Amino acid sequence: MEFVTETVKKDRTGIAAIFAGTLVGEQVKVDGIVHAVRDMGEVVFVILRKRDGLLQCVSETGTKQAGKGIKEESSVCITGVVRREERAPGGYEVKIGEIRMLSEPAEPLPFAVSKWKLPVSPETNLDHRAIALRNEKQRARFRIQEGIVRGFRDYLYGEGFTEIHTPKIGAKSAEGGANLFKLEYFHRPAVLQQSPQFYKQMLVGVFERVFETGPVFRAEKHSTKRHLNEYTSLDFEMGFIDDFTELMAMETGFLRYTMRLLETEYAREIALLGVALPDTERIPVIRFDEAKRLAAEAYGRQIRSPYDLEPEEEALIGRYMKERYGADFVFVTHYPSKKRPFYAMDDPADLRYTLSFDLLFGGLEITTGGQRIHDYQMLLDKIEKRGMTTEGMEAYLEVFRCGMPPHGGLGIGSERMTMKLIGEDNVRETTLFPRDLSRLEP
Amino acid sequence: MEFVTETVKKDRTGIAAIFAGTLVGEQVKVDGIVHAVRDMGEVVFVILRKRDGLLQCVSETGTKQAGKGIKEESSVCITGVVRREERAPGGYEVKIGEIRMLSEPAEPLPFAVSKWKLPVSPETNLDHRAIALRNEKQRARFRIQEGIVRGFRDYLYGEGFTEIHTPKIGAKSAEGGANLFKLEYFHRPAVLQQSPQFYKQMLVGVFERVFETGPVFRAEKHSTKRHLNEYTSLDFEMGFIDDFTELMAMETGFLRYTMRLLETEYAREIALLGVALPDTERIPVIRFDEAKRLAAEAYGRQIRSPYDLEPEEEALIGRYMKERYGADFVFVTHYPSKKRPFYAMDDPADLRYTLSFDLLFGGLEITTGGQRIHDYQMLLDKIEKRGMTTEGMEAYLEVFRCGMPPHGGLGIGSERMTMKLIGEDNVRETTLFPRDLSRLEP
Repeated sequence: MEFVTETVKKDRTGIAAIFAGTLVGEQVKVDGIVHAVRDMGEVVFVILRKRDGLLQCVSETGTKQAGKGIKEESSVCITGVVRREERAPGGYEVKIGEIRMLSEPAEPLPFAVSKWKLPVSPETNLDHRAIALRNEKQRARFRIQEGIVRGFRDYLYGEGFTEIHTPKIGAKSAEGGANLFKLEYFHRPAVLQQSPQFYKQMLVGVFERVFETGPVFRAEKHSTKRHLNEYTSLDFEMGFIDDFTELMAMETGFLRYTMRLLETEYAREIALLGVALPDTERIPVIRFDEAKRLAAEAYGRQIRSPYDLEPEEEALIGRYMKERYGADFVFVTHYPSKKRPFYAMDDPADLRYTLSFDLLFGGLEITTGGQRIHDYQMLLDKIEKRGMTTEGMEAYLEVFRCGMPPHGGLGIGSERMTMKLIGEDNVRETTLFPRDLSRLEP
Repeated sequence: MEFVTETVKKDRTGIAAIFAGTLVGEQVKVDGIVHAVRDMGEVVFVILRKRDGLLQCVSETGTKQAGKGIKEESSVCITGVVRREERAPGGYEVKIGEIRMLSEPAEPLPFAVSKWKLPVSPETNLDHRAIALRNEKQRARFRIQEGIVRGFRDYLYGEGFTEIHTPKIGAKSAEGGANLFKLEYFHRPAVLQQSPQFYKQMLVGVFERVFETGPVFRAEKHSTKRHLNEYTSLDFEMGFIDDFTELMAMETGFLRYTMRLLETEYAREIALLGVALPDTERIPVIRFDEAKRLAAEAYGRQIRSPYDLEPEEEALIGRYMKERYGADFVFVTHYPSKKRPFYAMDDPADLRYTLSFDLLFGGLEITTGGQRIHDYQMLLDKIEKRGMTTEGMEAYLEVFRCGMPPHGGLGIGSERMTMKLIGEDNVRETTLFPRDLSRLEP
């Protein structure tokens, strides 16, 4: 009988090892995709794209022809000697001894991906998404997105949260509403969950603190730069809060942890995209009604809808906080009860408002959160007051009937947060394969 | 302007701090859900369920009545003094000074959750899932599941993989096939992805190594103990493999890392469920055809289907490896080409077989993986040979036309792996809210 006893040990050298500078003069074997070839006659530069950066390889012998005629996007394994070369990315290069061809493209790329700026329209980018992402700056965005999602999880693991995986197919929506994708589930009508809201609340009675990072589905007919019909939501819910401000404090902890993680583990991508990490030490907090008034007063904008923050108002509030306090984030609290879901906890001091908040980042809502109703009778009363039915909510209501601690939580749109962090203005730019009203492929 | 400047600092003491033993004689404040009340007349025991265990609190004064008449599943905050008490869970208890009520249930539980073994049928358990999970042993399963998913991610981060989030709604299936849930997407027909297969392959050309942990959807009409119609798949795909055995080595690395993680970070749950962590140092590897023959010879089972391993055969192979080598895992390699998807790389030494494998755990398949075809023409030829159409695969095929490194990957069913690890025999037992032919709720 044969056995697997070893994990992978390959004879390939990575970029980090080469750029560390200790291998100068030594022979190494490196694999990668040919990102660009620059044939200067006597000298041929072969730039390898590797998962953690670009590596310059160079052939100087006219005789050996190494690198001559090699196609971009070929996969190769190069054997050569490491040299110091200040003009090369990372400060080192590999003098090519031998190139072994692993795989060759059948056709050239539809557009060049090795340019600093991708030379295509946003639509073409999305149409050929898996090609466009081969561009260094394009792919860096999603490394940063990884850091955000990873930071969320790692911070919450450390705070005693349990990770959950809740079903995306359900008999009813988690929050009712019309914006649901419908499907047939073995001859029964079903929907795709627009949020793990009900499940995460139900599991507060079990694990006390829970989080989920997963897809949510919104059949909204919005066609804007900030809406997606499927996105990755970072959700948490925590029990035994004394006050809804604890939720904002927990989110602040996540933001700080994540900025440090990005600064250290994703420094290359942060530098590549020229990202200035936002301050998370002092995040302004302002009530909804004050924020609305402030946007109106500071910028002469008329208040049209008293119950909602319009996108333009959010942008103005963001602008105000940036100009006045140098703040990129702002917590807006106490949203009107009318515009929050039935399970939102109304403020006992003024029942027209809720113990809730949004977090704006650069003038855009990236988080909605708040305290929830935990008392069974209060929940039933609110449902009745709204003229809603409890049908389909039996399992949800059961946990409240059987006892639930005070709790609250929030959801963060990871694509929006990435977009704001890197300074983009269309959420499709920070979604690997976006889904919108017109886009279902690739 | 007010600012959030602090992350949460609460005056509550956690179980770990109390069980550390340094707080004896000191007053603490603890919150939790009343898991059980044992009123012995003069003495009342209030067992608090907290996220990381049970805490015994005790009232000994007949006069103060603390704890008397308190309802199970109430949420409380108890102020009291820590004492050494060997008979208490963890070896310490809190002598109750004051109990503050945070929330009270409206009705008693439909069944007792504080029993060691939950006193209900599996169906009742699933019908009242969020209640049943309040049982200590029930919830421990999902802490272990967290450890598995977390171990998968952490190990792969360390190996240079990038985490991806790919869309679950698509125009076509990633792998074709009939087992797809269909939905309407803004008046266009759409499906739920049964796997991130195409996306993860496409992104190998971008990030070289990628993984995803997310839901997959299978409209299979199987009603067995090992099938779910929605489950959490742990997927990875890696480029620049020289040999498909590197995939098995990478999975072995994940298994080892995860067993260590469970041993250290999830020791309480491992002990609670009496889990014996499997050996991952030597995992047997056997070819598909040999495994089939072996199951037939060792246990006198007739070979019926030459192209598949039947569940009974998998069980026999697992049994053989356990009896003969003490092995819980076994890699079965070289599955017949006929039964693998079109993108599977055929074995150049014998084209009837593929460079692929399954990992069996306790006689059950928990992983399917293998090397994929990376050459564009080879892929087209295979598609044609199978009489398939390339329609709907344009974006997938484009990446191969433009060049792709040799690569392969695998998918792991997290619920099945959890099930086998804790010794359950129905995958619903290790799914928070299972979806099957008859179950769409809760």
